[in-house]
Amino acid sequence: MPKYIFSNLIGAFVFDEKLNLDDSILFKNLEEYENKSHYEEKLIKKYNLEKPKDSELKNILHFLKNKKYFSEFYNKNLLLTKKQIKNSVNEDLLIIQAVSSIEETDKVIYALIKRLREWYELYNPEFSKSIKDNEKFIELISNKTKKDLLKEINIDEQDSMGASLSDADLKPIMFLAKRIAELYKLKESNKIYLQNLMKKCCPNLVSVAGFLLGAKLIRHTGSLKRLVQMPASTIQILGAEKALFRHIKNKKFKAPRHGLIIEHHLIAKAPQKMHGKTARALADKISLAVKVDYFKGKFIGDKLKQELEEKFRK
Amino acid sequence: MPKYIFSNLIGAFVFDEKLNLDDSILFKNLEEYENKSHYEEKLIKKYNLEKPKDSELKNILHFLKNKKYFSEFYNKNLLLTKKQIKNSVNEDLLIIQAVSSIEETDKVIYALIKRLREWYELYNPEFSKSIKDNEKFIELISNKTKKDLLKEINIDEQDSMGASLSDADLKPIMFLAKRIAELYKLKESNKIYLQNLMKKCCPNLVSVAGFLLGAKLIRHTGSLKRLVQMPASTIQILGAEKALFRHIKNKKFKAPRHGLIIEHHLIAKAPQKMHGKTARALADKISLAVKVDYFKGKFIGDKLKQELEEKFRK
Repeated sequence: MPKYIFSNLIGAFVFDEKLNLDDSILFKNLEEYENKSHYEEKLIKKYNLEKPKDSELKNILHFLKNKKYFSEFYNKNLLLTKKQIKNSVNEDLLIIQAVSSIEETDKVIYALIKRLREWYELYNPEFSKSIKDNEKFIELISNKTKKDLLKEINIDEQDSMGASLSDADLKPIMFLAKRIAELYKLKESNKIYLQNLMKKCCPNLVSVAGFLLGAKLIRHTGSLKRLVQMPASTIQILGAEKALFRHIKNKKFKAPRHGLIIEHHLIAKAPQKMHGKTARALADKISLAVKVDYFKGKFIGDKLKQELEEKFRK
Repeated sequence: MPKYIFSNLIGAFVFDEKLNLDDSILFKNLEEYENKSHYEEKLIKKYNLEKPKDSELKNILHFLKNKKYFSEFYNKNLLLTKKQIKNSVNEDLLIIQAVSSIEETDKVIYALIKRLREWYELYNPEFSKSIKDNEKFIELISNKTKKDLLKEINIDEQDSMGASLSDADLKPIMFLAKRIAELYKLKESNKIYLQNLMKKCCPNLVSVAGFLLGAKLIRHTGSLKRLVQMPASTIQILGAEKALFRHIKNKKFKAPRHGLIIEHHLIAKAPQKMHGKTARALADKISLAVKVDYFKGKFIGDKLKQELEEKFRK
């Protein structure tokens, strides 16, 4: 008489009282496994079955240890794992990639700009020295002649210390400038992409911390979920772990007052002695904002932001 | 009676026996100064002058210390210095910039590729893992669909562990790939430019060491001239200064057998115990080649190269 039902990755199995296999439905694919309750119910209705108790379960598991099931188990398990990996790609991971890409691009631009300036200064040192803004520098040297650039800073081309380079020698310099200009565009488009992701995924956090700082906090913790689980006091010093442990080991060193959040405009513009207080208040609001975001609460970001700004207006 | 002639940056001066100023021609610009012998001769013919002796020279110099000449001296000196700086930009400096730019671009590509792979692997990890060549990787993912890429490595798209990303999420990844592809092109064009420079400036060195290694040697020493002044034994270990000084301080450490030149194909493919010998022979030929290049001798690069290769054929 069929009595027990037991199902796993590869199918739903019916056993009799002596725990011999009586009937079974094998799952053809993962979808069927995910609907296993449907198949179980079908069998339960048909035979009036019950779930095995612990003592019987042990024997059933032993029965399924048969080698003939091994390859089936292996394949199904592999498929399931792959599917889980696939589904684990969520917005958090995209946010982390996007913000890392922005930072990487920044570094790369800096390295190439340094090279470009050094190279270009063989040709036109006076103009290069006259302009600090790198993006502007590239735009101008790409579109204007040496003569016009020097005129802007009231220098006659003949008085320049720069060598007159041939077109062939200028071309690679201009080519480098063009590539850097494109990297600036890459950074810009990545920022827009990240902003959209962040606004969709955690609008409250964006409102309080800004999308860039918000993304860095998520990257630092690994996911929004983990950020949500952290107390505000931890959020306050995320990124200052080194200083924190130095303080713990030796009290001569002060405890850090802020980590990543120091780049927030409220802290940046606060007077030195207010840094700690501002950081604490900001971390509080961030902690609140991410919780609302994670549990899909209503948008209260503008309210949080306003409270924060009013507090530090004076 | 006018008797002595003396000229400097600001003009040619005629003095009488008592060393009072009698006549002068002031130079209007640097070109006139550079043709000063022309003006001197004119005055010498006119008055039948002679050059002052040391004792008179002292008084003449004292005379010229008059404040009214100061600003003129200052301006002319400035112009002269500027001109000298301008003229100091030679092919060596362009070579150094070009080879540094190639190396910088290489580093930058590496950093961005790492980011790209990590990002892309959220979408299609199997294909990324299947292909080592970065340039090929970028070309393929830019031009083929995920389905086709996976087909090439016999994987069904449905079995991929990668997430299915929306077009909006894919776009920034592809944008990054495009920028990297362009950086590869930048590197390539810089290489062609550097090769042309090197062939023009030091064809013998290029023939023996290759244009890239040759350029690195020039950069390391600062100029072709300084490279020419070095003995072959120094060229052999250029770039291994750290190891050399470690050896000098403590004889337990071996003296380095090669520096930069280790990247030459003859050393790279030589068996370990032949490295030192090969490096010595190569450094000899390089030392010879740069001397011929610097003093604009005949092209003997192919002969040098052949001798070197024959020596290590067995």
